[in-house]
Amino acid sequence: MIRTIGWGSRGRGLPLEPLELERRDPGPRDVVIDILFCGICHTDIHQVHDDWDSTEYPVVPGHEIVGRVRATGGGTGRFAVGDLVGVGCMVGSCGRCRSCEEGLEQYCRTGPILTCNGRDPDTGRTTMGGYSGAIVVDEAFVLSLPDGLAPAAAAPLLCAGVTVHSPLRHHGVGSGSRVGIIGVGGLGHLGIRIASAMGAHTVAFTTTPAKARDALALGASRAVVTTEEGALDDLADGFDLLLSTIGTPHDINPFLPLLRRDGSYVLLGSLEPTPPVVGALLAMPRRSITASLIGGIAETQETLDFCAEHGITADVETIRVQDVGTAFERTVAKDVRYRFVIDMSSLTEGR
Amino acid sequence: MIRTIGWGSRGRGLPLEPLELERRDPGPRDVVIDILFCGICHTDIHQVHDDWDSTEYPVVPGHEIVGRVRATGGGTGRFAVGDLVGVGCMVGSCGRCRSCEEGLEQYCRTGPILTCNGRDPDTGRTTMGGYSGAIVVDEAFVLSLPDGLAPAAAAPLLCAGVTVHSPLRHHGVGSGSRVGIIGVGGLGHLGIRIASAMGAHTVAFTTTPAKARDALALGASRAVVTTEEGALDDLADGFDLLLSTIGTPHDINPFLPLLRRDGSYVLLGSLEPTPPVVGALLAMPRRSITASLIGGIAETQETLDFCAEHGITADVETIRVQDVGTAFERTVAKDVRYRFVIDMSSLTEGR
Repeated sequence: MIRTIGWGSRGRGLPLEPLELERRDPGPRDVVIDILFCGICHTDIHQVHDDWDSTEYPVVPGHEIVGRVRATGGGTGRFAVGDLVGVGCMVGSCGRCRSCEEGLEQYCRTGPILTCNGRDPDTGRTTMGGYSGAIVVDEAFVLSLPDGLAPAAAAPLLCAGVTVHSPLRHHGVGSGSRVGIIGVGGLGHLGIRIASAMGAHTVAFTTTPAKARDALALGASRAVVTTEEGALDDLADGFDLLLSTIGTPHDINPFLPLLRRDGSYVLLGSLEPTPPVVGALLAMPRRSITASLIGGIAETQETLDFCAEHGITADVETIRVQDVGTAFERTVAKDVRYRFVIDMSSLTEGR
Repeated sequence: MIRTIGWGSRGRGLPLEPLELERRDPGPRDVVIDILFCGICHTDIHQVHDDWDSTEYPVVPGHEIVGRVRATGGGTGRFAVGDLVGVGCMVGSCGRCRSCEEGLEQYCRTGPILTCNGRDPDTGRTTMGGYSGAIVVDEAFVLSLPDGLAPAAAAPLLCAGVTVHSPLRHHGVGSGSRVGIIGVGGLGHLGIRIASAMGAHTVAFTTTPAKARDALALGASRAVVTTEEGALDDLADGFDLLLSTIGTPHDINPFLPLLRRDGSYVLLGSLEPTPPVVGALLAMPRRSITASLIGGIAETQETLDFCAEHGITADVETIRVQDVGTAFERTVAKDVRYRFVIDMSSLTEGR
């Protein structure tokens, strides 16, 4: 067993604290990774708070992991000691269903093994995430970090980045596409950067005037403050794709008229029931509502490679792990521009 | 002016009765059609009752029209006196927007000119539909009735038929596709016939056991009575496409798990707000809700040609126009297998 420290919660309502963790000894296909940085995703907060009634305690969150290879089990030789690597939301999947065969492991029929609070079918144990010193991962679920990506600022690409990149690719966005990014936060700020880099005319939608200004600096052609009177009036039939990064249920109807025929409104942030959707806004003219869940491993590698090529990383505020409680509070209060990343070298401070 | 008789309503709550109608003298591109048969669509009832707060009285419904060419204005010579022809839901559109240019006039940016209760931009008058003796229509909106289609039973193809055929084509249904048809009525019974003829494995969903038996006779591989306990349990991830022909708002969530990844649930019958949709059922795995509105003129001709090739017509009950009130009541009560069609030769009875 490989021993390390994780920061997690022992039970509902309890704060995060240091916990002793054991990682499995590496099998032939495994990579042992010393974690350098781990991003804070809103999902981490939902898991710690057990908002979805699915948390197994103790829970150690974290699925935006950047680290350095400490050892490998041999495997295919894809990774060598010292390599900078990433791990995202998944550490395994069935490998046999149609989605797995097509590189869309996030839609694995039996469900992928999540990096945090997932169930490892071999051991029956709950997976512990990246708020920790080290992790052992099947090399098929390890990403190469391309040269030129700053490790801390690249961490959020492993969840937030691929979550926006995957639907942009799936819906064929490119030069001449007209894309709206609804919500300017962890996902949204990367959505603006990536969609713009793909050549799309990109419009940001936010309720916060200061974020509208940020959106223009991030590459948006236009930024709309949706709370202003008549803000959407001149935008009818103007978009091929709208990505909603809003993390809570919201009324989709005001945005549907903005879609052209065959355009899609893609839910990325909210899995709960949406308020009622007016059928006529879908029918006239033929629009869709769909959703998208992170991305497959191959897609995640493409996200990293695309972002390296275009010089895209997240805007991050790096913190010590001891400050994770405050970071959670500020994330909930939307007081972050635009993602917290934990510097894991702080784990051993004062020890 | 061409004078004829229409059966319509003079005001909200008033029964249908014979009204004097004037049709325009044919211009060079017009076709004068003596109407032989007109189907009764549920939309006719909504218009007569002003359920959508959009009815201009007097209203003469009817948009599933089969007739014989009495005269032409010359035009392109596509039609000759004596030809059997059809007219569906539209008699005009702007002709210049992207949808019109792509043959999807139903999505015309300024709205197509509807056959009934539409606004004719040239005259400013409200259009009067097919519950009448004759109609004058721009030849671009006149369909050829292929040989071999019985005129009365072909009339419902002009709305109900193309409404199901268009999304089946748009979503690429063919041999090996797995299609669900939800609701077995005017649209649904044609959906089963057309999807089966396209080579799809077709499953019908109904709340009525007797209609489940009909569905099998219509060509469904399987028919599911959705009110039976556990009816949907073994169907998860089984469908590429679900066409909902249900005419009222309904809970979509029980059906979403039946869709495979990238499958679509298509609303055909209901334009009202749907009950809330659970985002997680869209995200896992990547499913869509969309809608579809009738079909373009070229699509409608394809529907007629496809149905002629495969020997498909609607199951109809032919009535006299004097019995339209009873037919409306029976349509609302779902007491029709599966479409009423008015024999317009009854118009002059007793006159």
